[in-house]
Order: sequence, then C-alpha cells, then structure tokens
Amino acid sequence: MKRDDIPTPALVLDLDRFERNLDRMAAHVTRAGKNLRPHAKTHRCPEIARRQIKAGAIGVACAKLGEAEVMAAEGIRGLLITTEVVPAAKIERLVKLVREAPDTMVVVDHADNARELSRAATAAGAVINVLVDIEVGGRRTGIQPGAPAVALAREIASLPGLRFRGLQGYAGQCAHVMGWAARREASRAAMAPLAETRRLAEAAGLAVEIVAGGSTGTFDIDVEMPELTELQSGSYCVMDIDYRRIGGQRSEALTAFEMALTVVATVVSVPEATRAMVDAGLKAFSTDKPFPPEAVERPGIEYTFAGDEHGRLALRDPDRPLRLGERIEFFAPHCDPTINLYDRIHAVRQGEVEGIWPVAARGRSD
Amino acid sequence: MKRDDIPTPALVLDLDRFERNLDRMAAHVTRAGKNLRPHAKTHRCPEIARRQIKAGAIGVACAKLGEAEVMAAEGIRGLLITTEVVPAAKIERLVKLVREAPDTMVVVDHADNARELSRAATAAGAVINVLVDIEVGGRRTGIQPGAPAVALAREIASLPGLRFRGLQGYAGQCAHVMGWAARREASRAAMAPLAETRRLAEAAGLAVEIVAGGSTGTFDIDVEMPELTELQSGSYCVMDIDYRRIGGQRSEALTAFEMALTVVATVVSVPEATRAMVDAGLKAFSTDKPFPPEAVERPGIEYTFAGDEHGRLALRDPDRPLRLGERIEFFAPHCDPTINLYDRIHAVRQGEVEGIWPVAARGRSD
Repeated sequence: MKRDDIPTPALVLDLDRFERNLDRMAAHVTRAGKNLRPHAKTHRCPEIARRQIKAGAIGVACAKLGEAEVMAAEGIRGLLITTEVVPAAKIERLVKLVREAPDTMVVVDHADNARELSRAATAAGAVINVLVDIEVGGRRTGIQPGAPAVALAREIASLPGLRFRGLQGYAGQCAHVMGWAARREASRAAMAPLAETRRLAEAAGLAVEIVAGGSTGTFDIDVEMPELTELQSGSYCVMDIDYRRIGGQRSEALTAFEMALTVVATVVSVPEATRAMVDAGLKAFSTDKPFPPEAVERPGIEYTFAGDEHGRLALRDPDRPLRLGERIEFFAPHCDPTINLYDRIHAVRQGEVEGIWPVAARGRSD
Repeated sequence: MKRDDIPTPALVLDLDRFERNLDRMAAHVTRAGKNLRPHAKTHRCPEIARRQIKAGAIGVACAKLGEAEVMAAEGIRGLLITTEVVPAAKIERLVKLVREAPDTMVVVDHADNARELSRAATAAGAVINVLVDIEVGGRRTGIQPGAPAVALAREIASLPGLRFRGLQGYAGQCAHVMGWAARREASRAAMAPLAETRRLAEAAGLAVEIVAGGSTGTFDIDVEMPELTELQSGSYCVMDIDYRRIGGQRSEALTAFEMALTVVATVVSVPEATRAMVDAGLKAFSTDKPFPPEAVERPGIEYTFAGDEHGRLALRDPDRPLRLGERIEFFAPHCDPTINLYDRIHAVRQGEVEGIWPVAARGRSD
C-alpha cells in the first residue's frame, strides 16, 4: 500500500524519523550510563515496544495492568506497571501476569496495598517485584519522600511474596516546563527528595537497585542525577507538538527527537474558497491541550475542531486553494491520547506502507 | 457479573434509564408525526442501534462510512451517512455497502462528488440514495440553501445511479444554546432556510421525500417545523453533562431524558485526607468540554484531570473520606467521544450486568 492509499483519518509513523529517535535515545542513555525503560503508555503498541527493546531498552513501563497484560502476551518482558494495582480482582490478574512474566514490577504507595499484594503472591507461590512510588511534587500518586517512603520500603522488604527493588518518582509537572534552563531547575528541585530517599533507604540497610523517573521533557536533565538508574521517557519515539514547543538545551524547539507521527485527513467539503472541512475531528485528535493540530508543510492553514468528525480549515494563502479529496497531514497536540483513539499505526518509509502495527493495548486502561 | 465487579475504568449504562429514554423519544416523535433516525455516532454500538429501531426508529444515522459498514454488517438497515464520502476508494466501499444494504443514504454537498458517485454506482449497476447536505449556519459541510442547493438537487435527480431523496441540515451550533427559549429562537432561524429550500425544490418539480435534522438539544423544537420529516437526535439515549445543563422547556436542566451513562473508576491512591487519585484520566473521559466529569451521588468531590490515567479528587466533605479501592461513578462531560474510548458498554440493571455490548464501530471514523 502507498501512503496516499491509507483510508483517513489514520495514524502515520515516519519510520526513518522513528528509527533515528530510538537510536538517539539509546546513544544518550548509554553515554549517561543509565538504563532506558520507555513508557509504552505513549504508543500501546507491542511492535514499537519490541523495537525499543531491540534498540537497547531493558523493557517498557506500562501505565496500567491491562496494558502490561497485552505487552506480556506479545512476549515483551521487563515490564514496570506505574499505577498502583489496588482492587482484589486486579491483584489476582497481577499475580497471574507475574507467573507468566516474573520480572514484572509494580509500584506501591500504601502499606495496605503492599500487604494485599503480599497475601496474594504468597497464596500463589509467586514473588512480586515492587518499587515504592514517591510523590515528587506532581500531586498524583506516591507516598511522601524521606521517612514515610523508607518505612514503606522496609515493610515491603519484610513481607513474604514481595521483593523490594527500588524507587520511582515521576515529576509530570516538570515535563512541559517551557525553556530548558527553567525545566532543569524545576526537575532538579522535584527529584532531589527522590535522590535523598535513596540515600536514606540505603542508610537503613535496604538495597536500592532501581531508581526510575524522567520524561521526554527531562531526558537530558534527570540523567545528571547520580541516584537515578533508569529513564522512563515515552513520547520521544514519536514526539508531538506539546513536547516540540518546550525547547531544547541549545534550541528554541525540542529538536533532539523528530516529529515522526502524523494524522492524515482528507478534505471532504470546500464550502468557500477560504474554508475547507476535513474528516478528522474530536475522534481523530486528542483535545486535552489548548492548541490545535498543525498542518504539516501547509503553514497557511489553521485547524479548528468542528465536532466529532470534522475539522475546519481556514486558508490564509488564497494562491493555494484546498481541493475536494486533498489529503493533509497534521501533527497531533498530544501523542499518547491521540494514538489511543486508533486501532493501528501505519508505518511508512518514503511513501510506502512497510507495516500496519496494531495498537493492541488501545483502550486497556483497566 | 455484579456492577461492582466490572474492572475499571469502564462504561456503565443504566438499562432502566436508557429504556425510558428510548420510550420517551419514541412517544415524542409519534406525537409530533415525525420519524426518528437517531445518530449512532453517539454510541457506535449495534446493540443500541437495534434497540432504538425496536423502539420505533426507522434506522440510524452514521457520521462516517466506516461506522455504517459496521452497522450494516450487524444487520442494521435504514442507514444515513451524514458526512460526504469523497475519495475514490471510499466511494467503492460505499457502492459495496449499498449493494448489501440498498436503502443506505449518503449526503452530498458538491456536484463533483455527485458525479463521482453516479459513475461508481452506474458501473456497479447500483443505485445510491442521496440527500443534499445544506449549510444551516454551523460553518461545517453543506451547500448554501436556496438556489445552489436546488441546482445540486436537480443535478443529482438527473444523474444515473443516484436517487434524490431529500435534504439534510444539521445546525450543530444550536444544539447547546443555553436556555430553551434562546435555543428555540436560534434553531428556528437556522432551520428556516432548510424549510425554504424544500419549498423551492418542490416548486422546481423535485420530490422531497425526506428533510432530516435536529439534535438532542432541539428535539422538541425542530419538530415544530412542518417541512422536517425526521429527527437525528443522538445523545438522548444516554445523555451527558453538556446536554443536561442546557435546560429544558419547563426545567432548569434538560430532564426529558435521564443520565443513563457513567464511567466507573477506582481510588488507587489516597495521598492526603482531602485528596485521592482515581484510575480514570484523559483516556477514560473525553476532554473537549470546558467542565470536568461529575461524581454521581458524591457532591462533595471535585474531579480534575491529572494525566492519561489519573483523575485527582478534591474532597470537600471531610466526614466522608475516600478509601483506597473505593469505586466512584462519574457522569461524562460529552458522551460521543467518551464512548469512543471504550471497547464495550456494560449494560446494568439494579446492580447486575445484563449484557456487555461491543462498541463495534469504535474508532471507525474512516
């Protein structure tokens, strides 16, 4: 199939750009002496996870148990589940997953949850690998750093059926701070309590094998921290407008990784010379960011959402009118929830579709 | 399965409320002497379409060809595709669909598109039923009402392989006008050119069998228009916050239809007494509306989005703290794109799951 034959709206991945992104991140973590366990919540696509691991990643992080189950069934190992697994029925599923993929890890931020995991693992004769999830200022999940985190780590280390492996701290609030210097300052401040917790835990006699964290926004910041052992950056492999605009260390935009993912749409109506409608709306792009999709190589076009299935294009360059049936590609504001709208990714190289990759964990937030 | 055993985040449909919604709309259109072809873009679920038809609907509207293909494969008939089908490959698919489900209709707003449809239908020995899509102020698709629309209708009526059936005008800009009186005024003004176009087309000797339009917001307004033959309201069957808040004819909220759809989530972290995190974020609720999901029967809780998989709950009632593992149901801001995030709907009656209905056309925006 040719790129131009893909039915729209559709996700297209530029393989040359994608592969350069994987290689650049691999070289970066190698130079920094860190591991990479990229976040698969970005793509939910086992084929991308396989390629990340082939390029040197030690596994993938999964936001949810359901995502991890899909990855494990596809043979992906080195899984870390970054949201607490709480209800009893889900803990049963986790134990089953751990028997299939014993190196799977899960985060914990509460002693009650640790005890439930311990009971279930012990009953099944399994061992669950655990990281303590530490609050680093994002006001999401996580126990307070310092003494509370060390006490939880000690409890986990003492419980049968659990193996304490280390710490996680995800400073999501730093990922999109505009400007590299400001972002570095924010991330250093946020991550310092995580580093301090590692030192306290080790002083308390606990072996802290793993300290995980980081985003695509802080990929070249968090590796400066000696206590960090692995990066969880996810979006770097495909990129999006939100990450491009935050700026790089030596550039106005974040250019270390290339914009590899697009949504391709078709003009289905041209009601006026300066207006056209495309077949891509709220169900083709995520809407969680306050800026619109951006037409690639057509800077004179402005997109606005116009319903579930429509985008309205305002045309600023009357010398290049929009034709009925014309295909237009857009960069998405935010990659993760945009990919989660699609069942497949069209992997394209120089106009040819090389593969159609199922987004097999799409919708698996459970 | 019990309601409380559904893995979260998940979509739950209250069957008692849902059935009352279907019955109320059926009684309403019967009283008004109109037909109902509800918009299946709301639910993308063949089982819901079947139940709407069983309750008296003459078919369903589909936003896209892909959606219609799924409905047809499930035996649903009386399909109307409300977005123009433009690329040649899609026109081929449409012709195939029409051979399987000959009463399928499609909208057209451009003579070039009409000629392409005619050529493809003629080559296949098929007949495509066509409505002319008329711009009624929403600045989306549609030809201008009046003379341009009548000229297009006349051309369609003259083309081999096409059968002119009537007109469609969707005034999306009126659907959520706050307050019934203001909404009535807006919709009457918007729809007047559609009515006028019907009269002009008939004066020109064209048989206008169908005039379609309307939303859940205007369900009891557009039926006042003698020229309208069928209503396309979609959201009424499940409802959402956005429609509830617009107000009814005699009520502050739109209460003619009940809030039948919820997203059920689980508390996975309780970092502070006044804050808890649930497992439902950007991938569990659509984010296109400027107001958050609303906790059902827990008015002291405020939800804010906190990433792909997290919602942050602020607790205003310290006497009723949130427990780890507690399940909380939310009304979604906007039903259509929220349902489109899920593969299934859990149909529940009084705490028991009666059915798990595939959202079989999920993602079929193509």
